[in-house]
Amino acid sequence: MNTNGLSINLATVREQWNLREAVEACARHGIRAVDPWRDQVAVLGLDESVRVIKDNGMRVTGYCRGGMFPAVDAAGRRAAIDDNKRAIDEAAALGAECLVLVAGGLPKGSRDIGAARQMVMEGLRTILAHAKACAVPLAIEPLHPMYAGDRACVNTLAQALNLCDLLGDPELAAQIARAGAKNRILAYHICDWLVPTQHMLTDRGMMGDGVINLPHIRTMVRNAGYRGFTEVEIFSAENWWKRPGDEVLRTCIERFNTVS
Amino acid sequence: MNTNGLSINLATVREQWNLREAVEACARHGIRAVDPWRDQVAVLGLDESVRVIKDNGMRVTGYCRGGMFPAVDAAGRRAAIDDNKRAIDEAAALGAECLVLVAGGLPKGSRDIGAARQMVMEGLRTILAHAKACAVPLAIEPLHPMYAGDRACVNTLAQALNLCDLLGDPELAAQIARAGAKNRILAYHICDWLVPTQHMLTDRGMMGDGVINLPHIRTMVRNAGYRGFTEVEIFSAENWWKRPGDEVLRTCIERFNTVS
Repeated sequence: MNTNGLSINLATVREQWNLREAVEACARHGIRAVDPWRDQVAVLGLDESVRVIKDNGMRVTGYCRGGMFPAVDAAGRRAAIDDNKRAIDEAAALGAECLVLVAGGLPKGSRDIGAARQMVMEGLRTILAHAKACAVPLAIEPLHPMYAGDRACVNTLAQALNLCDLLGDPELAAQIARAGAKNRILAYHICDWLVPTQHMLTDRGMMGDGVINLPHIRTMVRNAGYRGFTEVEIFSAENWWKRPGDEVLRTCIERFNTVS
Repeated sequence: MNTNGLSINLATVREQWNLREAVEACARHGIRAVDPWRDQVAVLGLDESVRVIKDNGMRVTGYCRGGMFPAVDAAGRRAAIDDNKRAIDEAAALGAECLVLVAGGLPKGSRDIGAARQMVMEGLRTILAHAKACAVPLAIEPLHPMYAGDRACVNTLAQALNLCDLLGDPELAAQIARAGAKNRILAYHICDWLVPTQHMLTDRGMMGDGVINLPHIRTMVRNAGYRGFTEVEIFSAENWWKRPGDEVLRTCIERFNTVS
């Protein structure tokens, strides 16, 4: 029987086997990918779980699960965030291809789903940098609205994507990836956007002097396959064009190496 | 000349006239609607501004402006929220048809637009109840991305609508309004959703025992023009069906009057 593309979420056999037994059983059946749960990993220990998965040549298509961000008070929300950071660390150790997040439901006594979603956004935003540093994508799993009360106030794909869009610049990421996929990134020009700007065209900023997250964009461009030059282009009638050229070039080099 | 449907945002003549002069000038020109700014109202005083607008029979199509939620620390964000609540009070006094919100830009030193948007969502959510109580709709005004740094991290209609959607249940509100507009609300059945539920069909809750914001839904149904009965329908195999009928009815009446 074909098992290509098949991954077993280990909740499927949680009552029969521990993680080691389940992974070995999957391997016996020719299954090459699993998605373990945190409690299963905890029983075996993280190091041993990593070893079992590696020894059996398993891909880890996801790690279940993080999320559960809403809580009645700030301490509860902080505890959830700390726990999610640990989940990210575990996912990274396991080589999981994403951390599955179930948002969490209404805090006890609340009927305000907007408040719950705001807590989810806060939680996501707070753990995002750590997830990026660990290269663990965060996968928001919307659940049926039946679970909105106690499990997930994110109940539609649209709500999940709304959160993603607000937390980043999905168009930029998507269009850079699209351009890269067809080898259509022919050059990468950089400068910065000054706040306040004095002129729409001729008050461009030196990298690091403005509000643009250049390292983030560079990473996207690089991930899209671009290996060409980073070209500094600064129109600056009142500042850089008036300084000695050597100073301008020295500054470009320094900023290219530190903040671009 | 036709002035039907024309409203003058009073920033348009802010250098020429104070609010009284501007409103009187508008009236002279046959203009029936204005949108004043908070600083213009502050100069004249709120009571006098209300009087001037009323005496001139002006509609107030909006009030500029609230928002500016992001700040470097919690104290700054709380101050912004308090200021927005005052703006809502002023808008209500003026009879403004909405409070215009400009989201606010990146907190000083930040390059994380997701964090800024999270602060906007927090601010919106926090002032929403007060705005509803005052019947002042909140109008998020997206600005060109040029202003993302210092003025508005909400730069597209999609981003503004994403925030709205996450803060409420826009489908429910929209579809109730749609049904009402065609007199298609023929009945309004209520119960509550228990958390946890014991059975998908036969563990429905008495109003007030679950997580549904029934007064909010009732308001929407009423605003959609429905003036019919509120029908209590509770399938409850293990609880209400086992209790004396008189107790069930007494409870229905009490909850209908207090939490429905």
